[in-house]
Amino acid sequence: MDFYEVIRTRRSVRSYKPDPIPDNVLRRVLDAARIAPSGSNRQPWKFIVVKDEETKRKLIPACHNQSWIAEAPVIVVACAQELAYNRGGYMGKLSGVMDATIAFTHLILAARAEGLGTCWIGAFDNDKVKEILGVPEGWNVAALTPLGYPSEGEDAFRETANRKPLEEIVSTDKF
Amino acid sequence: MDFYEVIRTRRSVRSYKPDPIPDNVLRRVLDAARIAPSGSNRQPWKFIVVKDEETKRKLIPACHNQSWIAEAPVIVVACAQELAYNRGGYMGKLSGVMDATIAFTHLILAARAEGLGTCWIGAFDNDKVKEILGVPEGWNVAALTPLGYPSEGEDAFRETANRKPLEEIVSTDKF
Repeated sequence: MDFYEVIRTRRSVRSYKPDPIPDNVLRRVLDAARIAPSGSNRQPWKFIVVKDEETKRKLIPACHNQSWIAEAPVIVVACAQELAYNRGGYMGKLSGVMDATIAFTHLILAARAEGLGTCWIGAFDNDKVKEILGVPEGWNVAALTPLGYPSEGEDAFRETANRKPLEEIVSTDKF
Repeated sequence: MDFYEVIRTRRSVRSYKPDPIPDNVLRRVLDAARIAPSGSNRQPWKFIVVKDEETKRKLIPACHNQSWIAEAPVIVVACAQELAYNRGGYMGKLSGVMDATIAFTHLILAARAEGLGTCWIGAFDNDKVKEILGVPEGWNVAALTPLGYPSEGEDAFRETANRKPLEEIVSTDKF
């Protein structure tokens, strides 16, 4: 799929078919995350592919009871390593979260290219998700997304972006 | 350009031609950032397009003396609003940085689709960059990138990703 079509038609999908994702498709989506850039190429990320029905259900209360996330055949959880490296001087140990966010953006876009829906879940209980998935100390959850074919089919990717105009978010030479 | 070709051939470019970027090309690249997703669609980002030669030169010492960043005709600076909303429970006011990182990833990829080089600059002095560009309190610099045509031309986008194998960064159901 054309790059700009992917960017323009990515949508947050909140209703999924139970249909499984073919292994080669899932692999391409994960590989798009794998080759993302990171500070000093440290790649401080891990991706947990949650397929087990019971584990998916356990994640619901840890994600503010957004129960539709478990409709998808897969929930992908991006984890970020805490780093000693102090990126930008104010992120502290959380600079790995920026890297994981870059990689997860690749994954979200690749999913769209494959006709798969996603919804970036940023509202979750870090400690609860860590406990459910056995995420060790020194790592945090950066984001989650359900991954699956949208109930609506291709209609889920209608172009309806509601965003500020470019003039409001771009300036030249000064803030 | 095909989506996966963009993902596969994006590279960190550290040498640029001084050639200007046509306005319509720059606009498409910025627009890719504009339509990125963000928590509750808050769009807590601003992009400063630095073209002024003196301002570009001032940014060099604020970016650990990476002087090649000023070779490019443009330096794009992504700013993130500090938010009260506590995303994920541990990012605190920095959750806007995650959103700006998503949008900046769109911009970096769109640049590749246009044949433009970028290099994600994560090592910078937040306070110094803010002072140079007049970034107000309540905002932080999330990242910078030079933006321009690579000195090497299309050779700059050779496929040479040096990354961990998928098996090392992906697990099923548990960390």
